[in-house]
Amino acid sequence: MADTHKAEIEEIKAFGKARSTVKGEPLSKEEVEKYNDFFKASLYLSLGMIYLKQNPLLREPLKVEHIKGRQLGHFGSAPGQIFTYMHFNRLIKKYDIDALFVSGPGHGAPAVLSQAYLEGVYSEVYPEKTEDPKGMQVFFKDFSFPGGIGSHATPETPGSLHEGGELGYSISHAFGTVFDNPELITLTMVGDGEAETGPLATAWHSTKFLNPICDGAVLPVLHLNGYKINNPTVLARISHKELENLFLGYGWQPYFVEGDDVDTMHQAMAATLEHCVLEIRKYQKQARDSGKPFRPRWPMIVLRTPKGWTAPRKVNGHYLGGFWRAHQVPITGTTTNPADLKTLEEWMRGYEPERLFGEEGHISAELKALCPTGNRRMSANPVANGGTISKPLNMPDFRDYAIKVPKAGATVDASMSNFATFLRDIIKNNPTNFRLMGPDETESNKLGAVYEAGKKVWMGEYFEEDEDGGNLSPFGRVMEILSEHTCEGWLEGYLLSGRHGMLNSYEPFIHVIDSMVNQHCKWIEKCLEVEWRAKVPSLNILLTAVVWRQDHNGFTHQDPGFLDVICNKSPEVVRIYLPPDGNCLLSVMDHCFRSQNYVNVVVADKQPHIQYLTMEEAIEHCTKGIGIWPQFSTDAGEEPDLVMASCGDVSTSESLAAIDLLLQHFPDMKIRCVNVVDLFKLIHHTDHPHGLTDAEWTALFTANKPVIFNFHSYPWLVHRLTYKRPGSANIHVRGYKEKGNIDTPLELAIRNQTDRFSLAMDAIDRMPQLGNRGAAARDALKSQQVAAAAYSFEHGVDPQFLSDWAWPQDGVKAKLQKAIS
Amino acid sequence: MADTHKAEIEEIKAFGKARSTVKGEPLSKEEVEKYNDFFKASLYLSLGMIYLKQNPLLREPLKVEHIKGRQLGHFGSAPGQIFTYMHFNRLIKKYDIDALFVSGPGHGAPAVLSQAYLEGVYSEVYPEKTEDPKGMQVFFKDFSFPGGIGSHATPETPGSLHEGGELGYSISHAFGTVFDNPELITLTMVGDGEAETGPLATAWHSTKFLNPICDGAVLPVLHLNGYKINNPTVLARISHKELENLFLGYGWQPYFVEGDDVDTMHQAMAATLEHCVLEIRKYQKQARDSGKPFRPRWPMIVLRTPKGWTAPRKVNGHYLGGFWRAHQVPITGTTTNPADLKTLEEWMRGYEPERLFGEEGHISAELKALCPTGNRRMSANPVANGGTISKPLNMPDFRDYAIKVPKAGATVDASMSNFATFLRDIIKNNPTNFRLMGPDETESNKLGAVYEAGKKVWMGEYFEEDEDGGNLSPFGRVMEILSEHTCEGWLEGYLLSGRHGMLNSYEPFIHVIDSMVNQHCKWIEKCLEVEWRAKVPSLNILLTAVVWRQDHNGFTHQDPGFLDVICNKSPEVVRIYLPPDGNCLLSVMDHCFRSQNYVNVVVADKQPHIQYLTMEEAIEHCTKGIGIWPQFSTDAGEEPDLVMASCGDVSTSESLAAIDLLLQHFPDMKIRCVNVVDLFKLIHHTDHPHGLTDAEWTALFTANKPVIFNFHSYPWLVHRLTYKRPGSANIHVRGYKEKGNIDTPLELAIRNQTDRFSLAMDAIDRMPQLGNRGAAARDALKSQQVAAAAYSFEHGVDPQFLSDWAWPQDGVKAKLQKAIS
Repeated sequence: MADTHKAEIEEIKAFGKARSTVKGEPLSKEEVEKYNDFFKASLYLSLGMIYLKQNPLLREPLKVEHIKGRQLGHFGSAPGQIFTYMHFNRLIKKYDIDALFVSGPGHGAPAVLSQAYLEGVYSEVYPEKTEDPKGMQVFFKDFSFPGGIGSHATPETPGSLHEGGELGYSISHAFGTVFDNPELITLTMVGDGEAETGPLATAWHSTKFLNPICDGAVLPVLHLNGYKINNPTVLARISHKELENLFLGYGWQPYFVEGDDVDTMHQAMAATLEHCVLEIRKYQKQARDSGKPFRPRWPMIVLRTPKGWTAPRKVNGHYLGGFWRAHQVPITGTTTNPADLKTLEEWMRGYEPERLFGEEGHISAELKALCPTGNRRMSANPVANGGTISKPLNMPDFRDYAIKVPKAGATVDASMSNFATFLRDIIKNNPTNFRLMGPDETESNKLGAVYEAGKKVWMGEYFEEDEDGGNLSPFGRVMEILSEHTCEGWLEGYLLSGRHGMLNSYEPFIHVIDSMVNQHCKWIEKCLEVEWRAKVPSLNILLTAVVWRQDHNGFTHQDPGFLDVICNKSPEVVRIYLPPDGNCLLSVMDHCFRSQNYVNVVVADKQPHIQYLTMEEAIEHCTKGIGIWPQFSTDAGEEPDLVMASCGDVSTSESLAAIDLLLQHFPDMKIRCVNVVDLFKLIHHTDHPHGLTDAEWTALFTANKPVIFNFHSYPWLVHRLTYKRPGSANIHVRGYKEKGNIDTPLELAIRNQTDRFSLAMDAIDRMPQLGNRGAAARDALKSQQVAAAAYSFEHGVDPQFLSDWAWPQDGVKAKLQKAIS
Repeated sequence: MADTHKAEIEEIKAFGKARSTVKGEPLSKEEVEKYNDFFKASLYLSLGMIYLKQNPLLREPLKVEHIKGRQLGHFGSAPGQIFTYMHFNRLIKKYDIDALFVSGPGHGAPAVLSQAYLEGVYSEVYPEKTEDPKGMQVFFKDFSFPGGIGSHATPETPGSLHEGGELGYSISHAFGTVFDNPELITLTMVGDGEAETGPLATAWHSTKFLNPICDGAVLPVLHLNGYKINNPTVLARISHKELENLFLGYGWQPYFVEGDDVDTMHQAMAATLEHCVLEIRKYQKQARDSGKPFRPRWPMIVLRTPKGWTAPRKVNGHYLGGFWRAHQVPITGTTTNPADLKTLEEWMRGYEPERLFGEEGHISAELKALCPTGNRRMSANPVANGGTISKPLNMPDFRDYAIKVPKAGATVDASMSNFATFLRDIIKNNPTNFRLMGPDETESNKLGAVYEAGKKVWMGEYFEEDEDGGNLSPFGRVMEILSEHTCEGWLEGYLLSGRHGMLNSYEPFIHVIDSMVNQHCKWIEKCLEVEWRAKVPSLNILLTAVVWRQDHNGFTHQDPGFLDVICNKSPEVVRIYLPPDGNCLLSVMDHCFRSQNYVNVVVADKQPHIQYLTMEEAIEHCTKGIGIWPQFSTDAGEEPDLVMASCGDVSTSESLAAIDLLLQHFPDMKIRCVNVVDLFKLIHHTDHPHGLTDAEWTALFTANKPVIFNFHSYPWLVHRLTYKRPGSANIHVRGYKEKGNIDTPLELAIRNQTDRFSLAMDAIDRMPQLGNRGAAARDALKSQQVAAAAYSFEHGVDPQFLSDWAWPQDGVKAKLQKAIS
């Protein structure tokens, strides 16, 4: 494929002696030798993990019985990652750097595990994995073996806060760790496979949100090893010039280190990494000394080495080293083909285990001295175990932000704007410990008050009109980029390194990060099983612009299904709250911000809403998570005729209105009003720690009375949670059913049968005992619905009462009826 | 924020007379005037849609009662999009181009609707929206109004196949349309907000997969209008040089057109677009004449105009034009503030509606002549209504690929590799009409046989080792990039323009595109309501590397929850199949490839599996979608003691093994074996067209006997589908419950209680009538399970019988027992 850059293309194919942007030979001959040895020792360990269950140091000839029966694990990216890691150690020692390592390439665990083992951290954390032949054998066998550890940098890996099972998040995670960590440098390996993902491709723009005064630095090393599982990588097959342009365009200064001649590569990598560190420090000093933040062209490295670097180029007549065959287990026939076994043995012996690990089975003190000590070892950096250094938030008292509710259901207030003032003061009280993320929706989500305490971080250029309400600042606390992936990745990195925060997003588009949130759930779930891991602050996701107010944006903006995705995750880590009003929202959010190791999903509409509970009532209700609302019930504590249940703010308002409608027709009906804040209350207590017992359930919902349950999301989720419950066949759930159009809120609700009229009719349908009176009431309700819908359709808005309607607590009121008929 | 490029930064702030890379003034003064008029007419229509319900041509002074009560819609991106669209029309006419327009910016409908209306297509499609004052009024009122059309390029929009409700997919969709469409140019507006999303950021690399001989071209216009909802955009606030580098780095040749002086901008845009078209044609000719495909630096345009271009710069003392306030409804106080109403009126009158639409309320023939005619009008291009030009696949007979099943459950075969030969021949038979997409997993998914018919498209550089099994070709039919987003976007574009294809992906990471698939479901669902839309080929998603064989990759690779996401979509468009063996896989896939307007999700493991059904049996079983397997049942058509049901290949195999175990202990037990291929059979027939009636349900599952249902995915999904069924309390579902580790398949199953032993014990627990015999059998099964688990743990693999175990059709066999005890 001819490009216009023939010469530049030829350049990318050549390996051999190092070619690098930064020149210099900072290492003495002796140092080069030491790095060679350290590199070999690391590579030996990597192969050992993949292949050996016995004979860890090859002290006897390699036999089939020494090999794992089923070999699993990946070698391809290990050499380049190890190479980078060990050369950075020199600089950590020389410049006393607080450094973290993020391993982006898929299945890159052999690289980081070998380093953690050589640094001694592994044996400190896992005492049975000692630095001797016996410990090494356990270390080898446990890798990618049942009951052992995975081929990613899983939670069991010291120094890791990024597993990399799903690819694409290394850069955004890394940036998350360095925000408000001014001394930290996060060295981040980016796989060239991973670099093809969307989330990674846009995360390079994170520099436009990094302030060199208050934040640390990310030093990315794009690892161009040329191949993915079975394909070349895009970035390894474009011209040198294109690649350079790409990173200049992303705002970075790329430094190339390319080749496969180990000795010259040592010099090139050592010189280049040092240049980058000095450049980072120079920019930081310049900004910090002057007090003037700016966006430098931050350095990054493009490291081009062959895939499986140092592996044999060909095995059995096929390319191995420098080809995709080196991706996973590089030689696959070792247990069946004696020649393959031989090849492996020769390859492994080429790394000189005997000499390097000596009699006692560990590297020499001299080699070990290449590593930093204590917490300067990247595998021991406490930032990667952020819970250990996390400080609780300095929380204002949420009660101080209470919405006045003189009479339940009689006033309308802006729950979300009110919550924004609480959030604003959290930001104010925690100027280096809390960040708010959002994909350009914070203002739209009525959270604009936060800008009074912290503007939006912006390190791009400034224009004159920004003064007119732009709310931009290099020192902002709110981070907005139109990439849910980047926001989520930043936040995860920020939380996992011990800080606090929240993501706010439109409900429909949170599905964009389903998979990221799944992976975060899995990470924190696994962390619970790893003794030395401390709990980290929860991931708080606030969803607004909810389905029931996306009538005008139409069908694409209607999807409340994120809750289904969350419900599938481990009950240990997921929590879902749907506060019905403003004081409940405050109470719930206060709880979430104080919690640890959860993914808290809170769904609350951003529009003004009827307020039901005083702060004291809200606290009680949210603490219970579910409860009867006696002020809206007419069963007076007795067995009701009907349970009207709801979950979600809009859903609650319609459910209450339905009660009103029913009471207009049947003033003596015993209706019980039940409201759900904490969705997991619905599930059986053996399935989730928040779940009710069946006795508690029956006390609320009865075992045999009709329950009309108005739900915020897809109705089937409630059935999924309650199928085991006594009387579950009596639960009639209404929710969103993919019936949308360009609508008014009323029409949208009617289409989905979640409006007050439908709910009331639904209730009547479940109470045959009402007989003719029921039928008459039903007809009247239907007429009201038709009239309201017609009004709504004609005027393009709902009848006014539907938005400012207040609960007629004094008793049955004909306001509704009058307004329509 | 000082960058190192001060001068370049100043450049990006200045508007005024056009600055452009391509020079030239191709338009006469008269032409400039015409374009001015056409532009004004279009802008007038855009504002009219947002504001007016009456007085469409301002023939009387504008009054509050003419304004929509609730104004919705977005103006910000309309001017730039209109500008691009209309200038491309000149080239369509001049060079007779087959062109499609993709509108990427959010809520960009006023732009495309105004053009469809002016081109006359709108009135052809919607006869009541005539080109006169009356029709214009309907046209205006329907926009963003209940019962009307949305503010995106929804399915109701002629010429659209990209709605843009969720942002990020314009480029990948556009590429999908031009693959195998050599004459097509898809002009694609990319919003600078959208450009921040991950999917968009990586989609620029699509040029590495586009062959100038057999494919058409995408001409992207990055619309730098500077602002999103409430924030500046990243790409508008970096230096000119960085921006240029970025696109050079992505492999494009960027041409800049910047300014806000309309007259000079006309010349610059006309010249630049023409240059781009000629460059595209030159590259295509060069490649086609020579027969040598190459990857040119394809042209793209960076159009920098103010947001809401031509809007007043300031209103009420605040920036409007060229600021984010112009994003949505630009002047918001028109119904409450007479001054605002006046400002709007003056602004609208500035577009000269009286002169431009004249007495009869439509533009002059002279202006209309700027538009192409017939199908050359972009709003009439049949490619956007791909169903109308779609050709059915030339399908080989899937029966010819049947796996031989001499005895049910007695042989093991590779279902997926076998299906690959069928897929290969589909590719062979349909060399310009079918593509296979995958994120670098096709070979890993055992579909490698397809490369015999079509290699992997690759327009990057080639290395010598590629000859050694690289399977790359510029003329490939398989498309692999490590971006599920890009694969899915390409495929959607390819299907919506009438062609066929399939995406193959690992099951766990398909969640990455949850949101894209949701949006595609919504698109095809809405299309069903639009009369003139023809059905398009289905989106086929084959999920392999399933949860039950992700034991060794660990927890991050275990998520079968995509099915939950799909189940929430409209029953009109979603289908889910879990074929239990190889012949069922063939039958199901044949059905999917022939279907239209569905999203078909097929889950099938890639490893060898026991085969149960002959081709005839498989066809019958898949046609029914669910059924009793008499060959594995002992109820002989009578009422059974127990129903053992399964759905999914691994799940079925374990369920059958459990039947075997039970029969070893209770040879007389009447067990009914039920297998589910079509998941929606489980749901009530009123909720999905595939659903069973309750009578059909009971005939299979009984109304009161215990049902042990082994399910592939999260167990709650079955409960969600069956909660209404008779006897639903007797259904005990086992599935994945987020209990994973680095395991063997057996241990993973045991953790989740989906293994044969757990299932058999489960059954016994539900049959108290077994009494002491049951307890004894349970103990024995528990011991077997412990022994098998211990073996598995010790050896790192399952006991061999667990993988090659064959169903003992002759009767109860003690093979299992022997193997362990």
